[in-house]
Amino acid sequence: MEEIEVHELKKVKLNKPVMIEGLPGVGNVGKLVAEHIIQELGAEKIAEIYSWHFPPLVLVNDDGTVSLCKNEVYAWKSKNLDLLIVSGDQQSVTNEGHYIITETLLDIAQQYGVSRIYTLGGYGIGQLVEKQMVLGAVNDAELVEEMKKYGVEFREEEPGGSIVGASGLLLGLGGQRGIPAVCLLGLTSGYLVDPKSAQAVLKILGHALNLEIPMQALEDRAEEMEKVVERLKEMEQAQIPRIREEELGYIR
Amino acid sequence: MEEIEVHELKKVKLNKPVMIEGLPGVGNVGKLVAEHIIQELGAEKIAEIYSWHFPPLVLVNDDGTVSLCKNEVYAWKSKNLDLLIVSGDQQSVTNEGHYIITETLLDIAQQYGVSRIYTLGGYGIGQLVEKQMVLGAVNDAELVEEMKKYGVEFREEEPGGSIVGASGLLLGLGGQRGIPAVCLLGLTSGYLVDPKSAQAVLKILGHALNLEIPMQALEDRAEEMEKVVERLKEMEQAQIPRIREEELGYIR
Amino acid sequence: MEEIEVHELKKVKLNKPVMIEGLPGVGNVGKLVAEHIIQELGAEKIAEIYSWHFPPLVLVNDDGTVSLCKNEVYAWKSKNLDLLIVSGDQQSVTNEGHYIITETLLDIAQQYGVSRIYTLGGYGIGQLVEKQMVLGAVNDAELVEEMKKYGVEFREEEPGGSIVGASGLLLGLGGQRGIPAVCLLGLTSGYLVDPKSAQAVLKILGHALNLEIPMQALEDRAEEMEKVVERLKEMEQAQIPRIREEELGYIR
Amino acid sequence: MEEIEVHELKKVKLNKPVMIEGLPGVGNVGKLVAEHIIQELGAEKIAEIYSWHFPPLVLVNDDGTVSLCKNEVYAWKSKNLDLLIVSGDQQSVTNEGHYIITETLLDIAQQYGVSRIYTLGGYGIGQLVEKQMVLGAVNDAELVEEMKKYGVEFREEEPGGSIVGASGLLLGLGGQRGIPAVCLLGLTSGYLVDPKSAQAVLKILGHALNLEIPMQALEDRAEEMEKVVERLKEMEQAQIPRIREEELGYIR
Repeated sequence: MEEIEVHELKKVKLNKPVMIEGLPGVGNVGKLVAEHIIQELGAEKIAEIYSWHFPPLVLVNDDGTVSLCKNEVYAWKSKNLDLLIVSGDQQSVTNEGHYIITETLLDIAQQYGVSRIYTLGGYGIGQLVEKQMVLGAVNDAELVEEMKKYGVEFREEEPGGSIVGASGLLLGLGGQRGIPAVCLLGLTSGYLVDPKSAQAVLKILGHALNLEIPMQALEDRAEEMEKVVERLKEMEQAQIPRIREEELGYIR
Repeated sequence: MEEIEVHELKKVKLNKPVMIEGLPGVGNVGKLVAEHIIQELGAEKIAEIYSWHFPPLVLVNDDGTVSLCKNEVYAWKSKNLDLLIVSGDQQSVTNEGHYIITETLLDIAQQYGVSRIYTLGGYGIGQLVEKQMVLGAVNDAELVEEMKKYGVEFREEEPGGSIVGASGLLLGLGGQRGIPAVCLLGLTSGYLVDPKSAQAVLKILGHALNLEIPMQALEDRAEEMEKVVERLKEMEQAQIPRIREEELGYIR
Repeated sequence: MEEIEVHELKKVKLNKPVMIEGLPGVGNVGKLVAEHIIQELGAEKIAEIYSWHFPPLVLVNDDGTVSLCKNEVYAWKSKNLDLLIVSGDQQSVTNEGHYIITETLLDIAQQYGVSRIYTLGGYGIGQLVEKQMVLGAVNDAELVEEMKKYGVEFREEEPGGSIVGASGLLLGLGGQRGIPAVCLLGLTSGYLVDPKSAQAVLKILGHALNLEIPMQALEDRAEEMEKVVERLKEMEQAQIPRIREEELGYIR
Repeated sequence: MEEIEVHELKKVKLNKPVMIEGLPGVGNVGKLVAEHIIQELGAEKIAEIYSWHFPPLVLVNDDGTVSLCKNEVYAWKSKNLDLLIVSGDQQSVTNEGHYIITETLLDIAQQYGVSRIYTLGGYGIGQLVEKQMVLGAVNDAELVEEMKKYGVEFREEEPGGSIVGASGLLLGLGGQRGIPAVCLLGLTSGYLVDPKSAQAVLKILGHALNLEIPMQALEDRAEEMEKVVERLKEMEQAQIPRIREEELGYIR
């Protein structure tokens, strides 16, 4: 095994696709959106990325089989819009790995002639979110005005100084390669998987891509989560805070 | 010293051997089983693996000599079954080392034409185990039914999402090389060396290999441990929890 | 991306310049002084240094754009004195990165024929500073007497055994290349960004370089900080210690 | 700077020298002995070893100059015995660095035709030592009897399973090269620099080398330390435990 390996599963031809990245992170917002899009559009997996910068473990699937930690790239074609969607079960656990994996994602982006990158994530505020909101960051000042039109908020003091991991580095390192890129961060508590925040991000992304994506699955999940939150609030009053960790279990 | 070095001690010819891996881990279950098999069958050491991904220390033996941290490969031949058994005093302490050492074990497996791999370990449940049980994971869905016949349990929610270290990666990376592999995890508290859990794993492994291995040594050790557990329970009542660490001392 | 990359933005010709390093650190003293000099003299950025030894994140600027973590080199020319000023938003987060980045800074120093290096930092004493003071360390014993003339203090028991990061290694590794280097450490509490300590360091550096640099901006900032300290003292009495972290927020 | 660099300061010709290693560690016992021997015999520094596996800092000397972290090799010649003495201010801070630095020390050992290695250290028992004692470990079983004659103790359950760092790896990796090596560990509390334990180790080493080394300097230091211990005991009664850390300050 090399330090990083790209296993190409399928060759596709795409027309200046937009890349969407949603890897695990705060509230799992980015991953929820990316997986939702993959499922709703029926996007096709074209590549898997393995690296010893991922955790040294395998994940056990429901059928008893195991999977190595990996990132995955999906493709989707339509008349007006082609997409490359990046998701996965892990991000790098080493400092250098974050840089190396992001560069590999950018190599793939360039290979397919990507015209723009959207990176998706959550912005944890440490308390339950009253009003959904999506904060933005860009690697090209000209993108700010366009994004504001879609409802993205830009605040001088937010998103608080830094964006960690692939969602941030794709903008920074992408800028060095001249690829315009936008990061969309849904406000989230940071304590729970947050499909509601994911809905807010997806709505704006749909706007920006002029693409309608059914929301029902995310809405159902948000409702389920709502019940968890209700239970949490009750338990908090009863002082049994343990469930929090279990809910977050699979995100790490 | 290279990053990883294989010192071949002896050349042997094996007929499609089965590889059994039992390295230190939760409850030391895997290592107990592997060492028991090596001893009972009189398997022969054929290789030692050294790496700077092992801890930077030497172990002091009872006669005052020291040993570098290493993994070891033993071979055993019989009319119907040949074995390659992997044990050792340590696993990697770096992220990347886990991948590199596992790949080296797979290189050895392929060199000897291994037909299947069994990796052994413990699955810690955080409390004393009432009923012994062995959970399974595989790298080929077809193995599930076969394993169930030997008494292995497969549960959708267990073994809890991930298998860390060589026991997991041998399945994941082995699958990439087309080597069928099974992980057997004995339920264990996770607090103590657990020869009872090791017995449960060994019993199922014996079934699967159609190989009878005397159990007495493990049984004796289990009885000794039973006494430790009794003492522990008494001490817990008397609130002197310190002995726990000492018992676990040599596992790290 | 390579392990470390120097992006040269501009070629300049300098006459035996003095290098001044002020990267983030205790009280942010070094960075405050370096940035103040860059601004007051209108120094010109000539190079950026990127490395995967910096944290895997991007910083979000006030206009919504992002920046990769980097170190920067500025140049300034005058009739009697040329300067190379090193600043940046981060230091290495890995052990080896500190050595590698420092060697890169020294490569640049040698390329421009640097005649001396001043590294700037803070020396945290764990309590509010009563009397401003600048402690020194050198990589050539002959520099001690010269530095004492400018008001630098040398104490047998201070600065407490070691100087961590670029400010220290530029002296150590610079000495191996025969470049004379001085470290100036302003006494500071270590709890807060400390423009007052920065003023003390700047004053001595100005002496040493025979260069007058307006202090007003640092003085204004020190006054602002003074108010924060006052508030802190009041809050401490009222037992609300939280603001401390916020003030330090952007330093990490 | 390379990952590791040996700066040879002087060429000497030695006759099958004995190598003595005393680097910082528990109770600083090894370093105390090595530095004492260097000073008492007037051994000459012949090499310095630099590496980015040492901490990224410089040490400030009493005269205001700084030193990079390094290991040092000293040589001493006499009619009957030649010595190579290894000391230094730090050990590696990375896992892999311990292995790499030890291999470099062994390269030097082989280059000079070293006939045996003594590694020196402390064995912390977590309480004040009532009766001085020196525990041993070897990389060749034949050395046990010889060492017992000099008063070294070998106990089945001590020194507790493992010897960390250069003192251990020189035995393990030295054994792979066929160099006989002995580790001498003075019993020590582990809380304080322990010149008394160092005396015990030195006495046995002197025996083994048939070399008389004046002890006065170590005795004086032990007496000073005795006073610190007295003060400590008093303070302990008065419940002011802070001084402990200060005493250990320079050891890391």
